[in-house]
Amino acid sequence: MKRPRHKTVSTMSERGVNRTVDVAVIGGGIIGLGIAWAVAHSGRTVVVIDPEPASGATYAAAGMLAAVSELHYQEEALLELMLASSGLYPAFIDSLGPDHYLTGYQRTHTMSVGADSADRHALADLRGVQLASGLIVDPLTIREARVYEPLLSPHVSGAFMVEQDHQVDPRRLSARIQLMLAALAENGGWGHDALIRVKATGLVHDDCADASSRVTGVALADGGTVSAAEVVVATGLAAAGLSGLPEHLTLPLRPVYGDILRLRVPEHLRPLLTCTIRGLVHGVPVYLVPRSDGTVVIGATQREDGSTAVSAGGVYQLLRDAQVLVPAVSELELIEVTARARPGTPDNAPLLGRVSRIGGAPEGDDVPGLIVATGFFRHGVLLTPVAAHYCLQLIEGSADQRWERFRPDRFSATRPSASVSLQGVVSS
Amino acid sequence: MKRPRHKTVSTMSERGVNRTVDVAVIGGGIIGLGIAWAVAHSGRTVVVIDPEPASGATYAAAGMLAAVSELHYQEEALLELMLASSGLYPAFIDSLGPDHYLTGYQRTHTMSVGADSADRHALADLRGVQLASGLIVDPLTIREARVYEPLLSPHVSGAFMVEQDHQVDPRRLSARIQLMLAALAENGGWGHDALIRVKATGLVHDDCADASSRVTGVALADGGTVSAAEVVVATGLAAAGLSGLPEHLTLPLRPVYGDILRLRVPEHLRPLLTCTIRGLVHGVPVYLVPRSDGTVVIGATQREDGSTAVSAGGVYQLLRDAQVLVPAVSELELIEVTARARPGTPDNAPLLGRVSRIGGAPEGDDVPGLIVATGFFRHGVLLTPVAAHYCLQLIEGSADQRWERFRPDRFSATRPSASVSLQGVVSS
Repeated sequence: MKRPRHKTVSTMSERGVNRTVDVAVIGGGIIGLGIAWAVAHSGRTVVVIDPEPASGATYAAAGMLAAVSELHYQEEALLELMLASSGLYPAFIDSLGPDHYLTGYQRTHTMSVGADSADRHALADLRGVQLASGLIVDPLTIREARVYEPLLSPHVSGAFMVEQDHQVDPRRLSARIQLMLAALAENGGWGHDALIRVKATGLVHDDCADASSRVTGVALADGGTVSAAEVVVATGLAAAGLSGLPEHLTLPLRPVYGDILRLRVPEHLRPLLTCTIRGLVHGVPVYLVPRSDGTVVIGATQREDGSTAVSAGGVYQLLRDAQVLVPAVSELELIEVTARARPGTPDNAPLLGRVSRIGGAPEGDDVPGLIVATGFFRHGVLLTPVAAHYCLQLIEGSADQRWERFRPDRFSATRPSASVSLQGVVSS
Repeated sequence: MKRPRHKTVSTMSERGVNRTVDVAVIGGGIIGLGIAWAVAHSGRTVVVIDPEPASGATYAAAGMLAAVSELHYQEEALLELMLASSGLYPAFIDSLGPDHYLTGYQRTHTMSVGADSADRHALADLRGVQLASGLIVDPLTIREARVYEPLLSPHVSGAFMVEQDHQVDPRRLSARIQLMLAALAENGGWGHDALIRVKATGLVHDDCADASSRVTGVALADGGTVSAAEVVVATGLAAAGLSGLPEHLTLPLRPVYGDILRLRVPEHLRPLLTCTIRGLVHGVPVYLVPRSDGTVVIGATQREDGSTAVSAGGVYQLLRDAQVLVPAVSELELIEVTARARPGTPDNAPLLGRVSRIGGAPEGDDVPGLIVATGFFRHGVLLTPVAAHYCLQLIEGSADQRWERFRPDRFSATRPSASVSLQGVVSS
């Protein structure tokens, strides 16, 4: 492990706590925590700035690591990133200690199931794209599917097995990272906590009149500041609201709300399932993720209705469609109903990387000290290891060129639009 | 108001607090609180003994005061009690202060609605029984029904209006009673709180070897005792587990679980409803109770599956059937899902009154100092005023003979069984 490049200093000003660290991460969702962990693990000092870490989309997420099953038409560019992250997962989990149980990481398989014949055709068509991308998706007879999952309805129309799509428990994983960060801060003698439970209000620049000058820290809502050699903006939908972002930078984030259920399986029905079931029921997706603690997560709706509350219609739809695939769902105990917003982007791909100093700046002329990592939409949990790995590479100055196409300024003025560049990848 | 018959004394023993009051009520659900309030209002000192008042069936209840609509075949005996209680409600609410809003009492009407033609026939048949009992139930055309309730589905099969079935908010009502009791205890100089947040373990008798001797108080789980001239057992399903009940007394209580939903109506859909809707959807009842605060209560399943948890199938059924009657339910925000047990009895009528000293004892030879008030099943909120009124009459020695048929010992050895005696009433 490298030595910290900055000496850690904490002082108490009149206006709040001031700290100096190597890297400040704004946002304590799974992406921000994952990046902070990779940075800390590399020997740097770090703080995560979030009034309520892991309480947003991370709190709701089911934690499917479904690079293969999540493949959507026209999103093949994203597939490469998802597969890379999937490959990094075991090492990422290993870095958090030997007991994988603490993160909820499990190499359970994923079964895709269709309810009616149109659903079966849609899944079969998708399998064509998956096979063309070199992925392994095995068709099952209904009889075979029910050998794996005896409680699957005999009336499903088709089933496919994806052995390489696993799962993690995002609540456990984020709690584990926070614990490990806290231990590192204490044992490493950082002299401050790894977490600041305060809202970040904006970026601090070298030249306070120039939002394209070097970013040197973060201003906090309590009046304090964090000075840092690198600042990572990983605060999901709130990213666009930070002050001090380069003026030409547009972060086209929109909230895509989802309702998600947690249920307890009564003893006599355990195990309800051993695979994750990803269903298509009359064209609408629904998934059931069995946890090792005897609970099941059923999700998730996609609503752009602006409502942060749990939708009665959404809960109804999830229960209805889950019962079509696994009738015994009606016998489960409903223990939690949650709604959260995911940070969507126009092309469903993240906004990840450095930001050019001005619109149309030549390659490499980026705002020093600033990295953006947001817009992970439905894929935040899956993409955490690759986001963490890539951000660390950016900090170390040796980044994987493949992920340049996810630059956060790809939608910004006078740069070629990302949807075009991603489409280019798709059609190649 | 009469003077307290007992001087109030509180002493601290080694084993807990000892108090002396006129009346001790075991159980702080709506029935126990209502009785305690009537007793206190008559000038007596009282304590309610409950570790968590108003947290059981009262917490879940929708609060429909639906004497007319709740009429079931073969339960005409209960109807008289329900109508009596309905008639007592305004005075009961008045006794709690001038601002009815604080109790959630509202004279909204109730509309019975059928989904299919069999449901319409069932409601029309029930109306025949209701009319024969002298009740007023007005048939509506679908068009008329939708003038009252524009968001009612145009596809319902039939509707009837019951103007005399109103509503109360059981959470507010029980909070209001607790507040008024506390004020009375303080202003009346009782020298103790009106509520003891401790579990009651059993009855204390004059002759500790004879469970048919006079009841003189209540033993508490903290080792304390409450001495009282009268003890009222109003602790719902837990009543049968108290020690010191007369040996021949059988309290045949069984838990009938129910799931119930609370939803918020978005501004653009207010008011969703102005009447309470009591629906029959393919033979299954569902109701929607609109509150003045912009929420709606949707209930309630009836399960005897032994599960205290919220049933996923139950929630699904409620959302499904409510949407059949009022499609806009899908656009509501689900804010709470609750399951509780109601204390059911073999004849669906309460166990209410004094208890004979021994099986087959002559009329009037009752255990002194003991009153039972439990088994209110689905009707606890509606029956609170009559239960309170009747218990006070029993204490004062001038009880309404009509309610003798609900004696709690009617199922006990060597007394004529209640189902027989109630059947007699039904067929008369």
